Amino acid sequence: MESNDKFQDECGVFGVYGSNDAAALTALGLHALQHRGQEAAGIVSYDGEKFYSHRELGLVGEIFDEKQIIDTLPGNSAIGHVRYSTSGGTALRNVQPLYADYSFGGLALAHNGNLTNANQLHKELVNKGSLFQSTSDTEVFQHLIATSSEDRLLDRFIDTFKAVEGAYSLVALSRRKLIGARDPFGVRPLALGSLGETWIITSETCALDIIGADFVRDVEPGEIIIVDEDGLHSYKPFLAVHKRSCIFEYIYFARPDSFVDGRNVYEVRKAIGAELADESLINADMVIPIPDSGVPAAIGFAQRSKLPFELGLIRNHYVGRTFIEPTDEIRHLGVKLKHNANKQRLEGQKIILVDDSIVRGTTSRKIVEMVRQAGAREVHMRISSPPTINPCFYGIDTPDRDQLLAAQFDVEGIRKQIQADTLSFISIDGLYRAMGETNRDNDLPQFCDACFTGEYPIPLSDQEKGQSNTQMSFLAGLK
Amino acid sequence: MESNDKFQDECGVFGVYGSNDAAALTALGLHALQHRGQEAAGIVSYDGEKFYSHRELGLVGEIFDEKQIIDTLPGNSAIGHVRYSTSGGTALRNVQPLYADYSFGGLALAHNGNLTNANQLHKELVNKGSLFQSTSDTEVFQHLIATSSEDRLLDRFIDTFKAVEGAYSLVALSRRKLIGARDPFGVRPLALGSLGETWIITSETCALDIIGADFVRDVEPGEIIIVDEDGLHSYKPFLAVHKRSCIFEYIYFARPDSFVDGRNVYEVRKAIGAELADESLINADMVIPIPDSGVPAAIGFAQRSKLPFELGLIRNHYVGRTFIEPTDEIRHLGVKLKHNANKQRLEGQKIILVDDSIVRGTTSRKIVEMVRQAGAREVHMRISSPPTINPCFYGIDTPDRDQLLAAQFDVEGIRKQIQADTLSFISIDGLYRAMGETNRDNDLPQFCDACFTGEYPIPLSDQEKGQSNTQMSFLAGLK
Amino acid sequence: MESNDKFQDECGVFGVYGSNDAAALTALGLHALQHRGQEAAGIVSYDGEKFYSHRELGLVGEIFDEKQIIDTLPGNSAIGHVRYSTSGGTALRNVQPLYADYSFGGLALAHNGNLTNANQLHKELVNKGSLFQSTSDTEVFQHLIATSSEDRLLDRFIDTFKAVEGAYSLVALSRRKLIGARDPFGVRPLALGSLGETWIITSETCALDIIGADFVRDVEPGEIIIVDEDGLHSYKPFLAVHKRSCIFEYIYFARPDSFVDGRNVYEVRKAIGAELADESLINADMVIPIPDSGVPAAIGFAQRSKLPFELGLIRNHYVGRTFIEPTDEIRHLGVKLKHNANKQRLEGQKIILVDDSIVRGTTSRKIVEMVRQAGAREVHMRISSPPTINPCFYGIDTPDRDQLLAAQFDVEGIRKQIQADTLSFISIDGLYRAMGETNRDNDLPQFCDACFTGEYPIPLSDQEKGQSNTQMSFLAGLK
Amino acid sequence: MESNDKFQDECGVFGVYGSNDAAALTALGLHALQHRGQEAAGIVSYDGEKFYSHRELGLVGEIFDEKQIIDTLPGNSAIGHVRYSTSGGTALRNVQPLYADYSFGGLALAHNGNLTNANQLHKELVNKGSLFQSTSDTEVFQHLIATSSEDRLLDRFIDTFKAVEGAYSLVALSRRKLIGARDPFGVRPLALGSLGETWIITSETCALDIIGADFVRDVEPGEIIIVDEDGLHSYKPFLAVHKRSCIFEYIYFARPDSFVDGRNVYEVRKAIGAELADESLINADMVIPIPDSGVPAAIGFAQRSKLPFELGLIRNHYVGRTFIEPTDEIRHLGVKLKHNANKQRLEGQKIILVDDSIVRGTTSRKIVEMVRQAGAREVHMRISSPPTINPCFYGIDTPDRDQLLAAQFDVEGIRKQIQADTLSFISIDGLYRAMGETNRDNDLPQFCDACFTGEYPIPLSDQEKGQSNTQMSFLAGLK
Repeated sequence: MESNDKFQDECGVFGVYGSNDAAALTALGLHALQHRGQEAAGIVSYDGEKFYSHRELGLVGEIFDEKQIIDTLPGNSAIGHVRYSTSGGTALRNVQPLYADYSFGGLALAHNGNLTNANQLHKELVNKGSLFQSTSDTEVFQHLIATSSEDRLLDRFIDTFKAVEGAYSLVALSRRKLIGARDPFGVRPLALGSLGETWIITSETCALDIIGADFVRDVEPGEIIIVDEDGLHSYKPFLAVHKRSCIFEYIYFARPDSFVDGRNVYEVRKAIGAELADESLINADMVIPIPDSGVPAAIGFAQRSKLPFELGLIRNHYVGRTFIEPTDEIRHLGVKLKHNANKQRLEGQKIILVDDSIVRGTTSRKIVEMVRQAGAREVHMRISSPPTINPCFYGIDTPDRDQLLAAQFDVEGIRKQIQADTLSFISIDGLYRAMGETNRDNDLPQFCDACFTGEYPIPLSDQEKGQSNTQMSFLAGLK
Repeated sequence: MESNDKFQDECGVFGVYGSNDAAALTALGLHALQHRGQEAAGIVSYDGEKFYSHRELGLVGEIFDEKQIIDTLPGNSAIGHVRYSTSGGTALRNVQPLYADYSFGGLALAHNGNLTNANQLHKELVNKGSLFQSTSDTEVFQHLIATSSEDRLLDRFIDTFKAVEGAYSLVALSRRKLIGARDPFGVRPLALGSLGETWIITSETCALDIIGADFVRDVEPGEIIIVDEDGLHSYKPFLAVHKRSCIFEYIYFARPDSFVDGRNVYEVRKAIGAELADESLINADMVIPIPDSGVPAAIGFAQRSKLPFELGLIRNHYVGRTFIEPTDEIRHLGVKLKHNANKQRLEGQKIILVDDSIVRGTTSRKIVEMVRQAGAREVHMRISSPPTINPCFYGIDTPDRDQLLAAQFDVEGIRKQIQADTLSFISIDGLYRAMGETNRDNDLPQFCDACFTGEYPIPLSDQEKGQSNTQMSFLAGLK
Repeated sequence: MESNDKFQDECGVFGVYGSNDAAALTALGLHALQHRGQEAAGIVSYDGEKFYSHRELGLVGEIFDEKQIIDTLPGNSAIGHVRYSTSGGTALRNVQPLYADYSFGGLALAHNGNLTNANQLHKELVNKGSLFQSTSDTEVFQHLIATSSEDRLLDRFIDTFKAVEGAYSLVALSRRKLIGARDPFGVRPLALGSLGETWIITSETCALDIIGADFVRDVEPGEIIIVDEDGLHSYKPFLAVHKRSCIFEYIYFARPDSFVDGRNVYEVRKAIGAELADESLINADMVIPIPDSGVPAAIGFAQRSKLPFELGLIRNHYVGRTFIEPTDEIRHLGVKLKHNANKQRLEGQKIILVDDSIVRGTTSRKIVEMVRQAGAREVHMRISSPPTINPCFYGIDTPDRDQLLAAQFDVEGIRKQIQADTLSFISIDGLYRAMGETNRDNDLPQFCDACFTGEYPIPLSDQEKGQSNTQMSFLAGLK
Repeated sequence: MESNDKFQDECGVFGVYGSNDAAALTALGLHALQHRGQEAAGIVSYDGEKFYSHRELGLVGEIFDEKQIIDTLPGNSAIGHVRYSTSGGTALRNVQPLYADYSFGGLALAHNGNLTNANQLHKELVNKGSLFQSTSDTEVFQHLIATSSEDRLLDRFIDTFKAVEGAYSLVALSRRKLIGARDPFGVRPLALGSLGETWIITSETCALDIIGADFVRDVEPGEIIIVDEDGLHSYKPFLAVHKRSCIFEYIYFARPDSFVDGRNVYEVRKAIGAELADESLINADMVIPIPDSGVPAAIGFAQRSKLPFELGLIRNHYVGRTFIEPTDEIRHLGVKLKHNANKQRLEGQKIILVDDSIVRGTTSRKIVEMVRQAGAREVHMRISSPPTINPCFYGIDTPDRDQLLAAQFDVEGIRKQIQADTLSFISIDGLYRAMGETNRDNDLPQFCDACFTGEYPIPLSDQEKGQSNTQMSFLAGLK
């Protein structure tokens, strides 16, 4: 009934070099990255002779919960991946890391992001005789590496990165090396950690904490890191470009306890809440978060406004993605699968609801209605992101433009749709202030904020050539 | 690694009479009661001719997520059950509701609670020729009903309730009646609701909210409610006893948005937090809940003490019950599967941690250590229940006495075990004050608080006769 | 498409006392009895302390193919069962052996046969307070044993056998005894074997051969055998009745290499073929069996008639029970899932087809047509049983009377239906001669041949009282 | 315990062009070819827009038994494959037909046979940048087709066939064409059939019979057949070579009702039996086949020798591939999972046992011993093939040379191993006579008989270059 009315991160990656427990550490790391993708998970390890692969649909804690499974992944290096599926089904063949044998030996690859010229590259590769198993970006990486005329693995990667456009933070594992790389704009996060002699590359720092590893530094935009028996090597084959990491990671995707490019996510969210209070405080009895994503901003809002912070909505964490297809009668009941209003607390009150974003608006409208039925006298909605007007093409699953409420209506129009008494979004500059900037540098923005502003830093080649919907395969069901 | 170091509620029940969507409503109700049992769920419906049963291991939202499943449960009355397994495995035959054919027709039964003379009754029934499929309490109910010499179903139930001792809140479904009953002390909760012409009986009121039903009243201790085509009937076959409902439902088991016997759970928890602040405030920089169960009390504590409420610990909701069996090396890392400290927030701070209880103490110790490693300067633990010294025999899964930390040590001893700088539990009278009482009436206590005081209101016959460990079956694996 | 147009045996039983490999021997024995039931199989063992049970839907070789499974069934006594389901689905709760705890300890039970007063007994037991899990005969045995007022297990069994009517060959396992029993008429087979110090009870002797055990003797009609640490005991609590074992076991059910009540099945089938040749030889080029069941009679027919025996029909052993639901176009193709005509061999020939029985006639008609399309000039059908006019109520799955072709038509009518050039069935006396008798003793027939003659030796109480279709349970799907 | 001590055919293929029921016909055809591979099956169909694929481990009748599955395979052309796995496990990715997208569109491919230079080609292709998913021959075909510089599909196939060495009978499906091709020596069978306007290509003619289709002709060695909307086209791009189809298809692999290259398999087997009687008749009481494969030759032997044909061994068709791992005690019992001696028939008799081949000899020895224990006085083994001395590299699964009993011992030595009283194999010339030839033409043998003679018609390049055991992948478990 209630779909997850949010932008969705698509993936998380994790890699380990130099530990007898490489696969176990990877499983733990992926568990900490589970919020970045819940559809499937996989690990590939290497033991000096062979690569070992285990990939499955499901949660990390279900797939890798037994010693026997971990024992099928020997070796002291490993990489792993969690995946969020953008469409209905996920075929197992698309679950990363993807492995292939090359002339130089085996290589496993896992990435977080999205290529914006994948279709074009796919077509060129097929014309040269490459056979694809899927239409995934990752396989484009594989074929580019395979058909590169370079000898050294590093040079094959550089060749490949020169051909691709888009956002990618990837980890790869060859017979002798763990590779980590981040696209030149650094759109998706990637961090470097260590645990004694062991090197770790991960999408977020919370995956370092779970295993007690130390955060070393963020991987830089455009940087290729190679770890081998001689230690860590860093390569920067691209001309320096202006960094444009995704600002939405701070608003919603990343875990509050992670540090992304030097900023603590929880503190940023609280700061946004405080800015929001400065911008749009209204007379009210209390501040209520829409759990769980609205909680840090609501705390920030409450502290700044000196209004009490209260749990007026209770979230049921057991909700799966779907539930019974109801009859019309049931549909009219307005079933509350995910959130319930805490009546006693709300009755007769003027409340400020804090959420992180409004996407389609269906959930917001439902919650406003629920809160009113519980007796709230006034309902003021405050949103800790600017209006989301544009889809993302850099690895985030967003609805098409015509389904984004903010692309159809102005703030007053949105307010009417969700039937709140008042509605405010954080301003773009307020958001940048919460990030610690004076304001947005409109000439050279400090972050990728295309979903708010429409300014896409990386070309959208497939889109522009109308190739994003080209038929990529004649096999039904191939994704 | 981290087991759930809590007392565990064992079951939730739900029943519907008079709706074309009886099974769908029951599925939704059970989903709202999911926190009362996550191992298995079942529904039995009746369509005027036949009973239909679907029971499975797993979460409600996984078992009953498809219209096809709901369509196998036709009829306008239904009962359902969610179950928490007390031991490793749950055989499907133990998943409730249990159904049987009797001389008077079919009857399905589901209960929440525990009989304290079940073993004795089991033995007597087997001696008279009854064949048991399990050693569950519910089957004792079934055989007592079957062998009662009474004609009327109501009288068979009364016969049965006169034979059993213990705590039970049950729902049952016969060909013409929906039955709800609560033991004479009213230990476990049971509430009555309505949705138009439809009657609903449920363990908690949050299961009324999910389907938009109205709360009518609590089922009274010792009351038998029968709903049939003539409407609602109430019977009270027992001499009035003093009500002793479980005080721990308010502390931890029930959902914060539920009303139990007239009190809102969230408000009680906040009140306990406030009392706790009154009793044991200390100089500190902030109040931090151990999520999720410590949140309401922490809010109450923070509001009373005027200290800021902060998320210093982040919970990973994707944790399953188990995870990979780690190597020794990994075990030494102190893996943080469920909670992670939010470093930036804690560094150099004096913090008050609020949790609902300390059972074995393993989790508390781990969290104190985690918080210190994150840089906290002082760690003060505040617990929103008195020390839990005694096991429960009334339907709650508790460790044996010798595993309860508070049964081994006094408060200072516990503090040393968990290595906090200071530790305070709410006092018994503080707890009763938070419940709205002046204090505990030691002659006639208002609640069952045996886990704190050792005063068990209902006899523990099997325990006393040493029969609780008698071999109940010669079949290996029968539970 | 082609269902199995045969009478179907419903079960096989096997028991072992006194071997360290009791469960493994039972699995092997059940594998040899697989032709008696392919839907499900189960084993219960006892190790001196506990009973262990493993039951599953599927073939023995699939269920018990791993050492780990056998290892869950420790002990030196065991019983097992294979089951053929009479209707669409088999619920696991009906898979035998059934186990229960009684006042005297545990008892597991498995039987082959059918009670003709089960419904009446079921009703009486429910009225006295017994709760049934199924409507199976075996559970009637269980409740009668449980509610017997006798002390000794043997006396409880005698009590039980005095109450039941019908055909049964059963094995049971208590804490100290292996029990085998055969109904007073000895309808279904049961044999006793030994392997060193180990005693074995089995439906057929082929299950002795598979483990290299010796055949000792048949269990006698009305005999109860008890094996315990003092050795073998035999009890005959019933007045002697005239033995009436099932003659169809020789025609079709039993495996050709088994000895049933002293006769080798293969030799009987060949003898029937020879008698059939004497009774109905016709000028032809060759004798062709309908494989596999028609082969032994066809060999006997060919040897007696001196016509060549040829494989004119090839059977595909990979056929499952069902296959794709075809379109009309495909249905018109006359798909040959199970048998194919061997064209080269049949073209222009006059052939005698030998089969064991004609039930609905659908397969016979299809095969005659197939053989003609392959070019056969004349098709003469010879059947090694008399016409099957009556259903069986003693443990064989037969269609209702109105679906038995021979109940609707005389021989000439059947011939027209199946479109053979000529058709002959063995005569009743010819059949008895093949069994080594002079003829059928019409006053006191030597075998149960009710399916041919309508003379049922055991009363059909439920049938006569119209109770066979009484609703036994209000639970949909309970069988 | 008893493994299948036989040479094993590895695959069967089937293709349909021009039927609304293409997938259903393919499922039925594969069912008729099930004896050629029981591990897995797959179908790919094309509906004018998309290709549809369904592949699974298991039997055809289990995989494609539901209309819903067939309905996922729309279109009026389809190809299918059944697979026998040469090693322990079969990964789904190896189950054919294999599909890929090429520059010219989609193409699905299924083949029966084995390439003898696959490893060499694999290595060359990887060096040029091709990424392999498996080490299967079929994928070599795919990459050769993909990297061919030709434009037309036919020319890409011709290119491919010029590169490969070995035995192959394949079917392929493109957007406009059904392709069938047989290697220049015609080692594995391939036949052409029609059903009205529908064309069919199949490994064996029994798959035409099952759907009532007509046999048109065999596909010729070296012939490429293309069926498209203009009808049937035949291409013969190779210089004529001398046909050398596999003689073992007649002895064991093909179904008795099939015609292979013009000969009826059942009649050939009977003729071998007759020749064998001419060559090695001995005084005996009866002829007994080792079922099922020995039956036709035993019938031929019995007819020629005028000895009675008897079922002295009963086969249990329910045997799976494996069974319980027995204890030593059980192993000593000489468990008879697959065959049992029919004691009554054998006791005191002089018998001639007829089987098709002796591979490792384990089964033969076991059966001779079993027959003796059943009381046979003399046991004379007659084999309807010459001694199998050499492994096959053309698509048949054979043990290594050192496991072939006939490669270690002469006939007298084999006799001692299996402990028969006498032993004879058919002579090479006797075998050729049974095939209708005067004798073997040693200069230009009429068939491939390398397993008997060691004369391999097609080069064994990988073998000779020692490349057959080269590591083809660094991924553990990749096959």
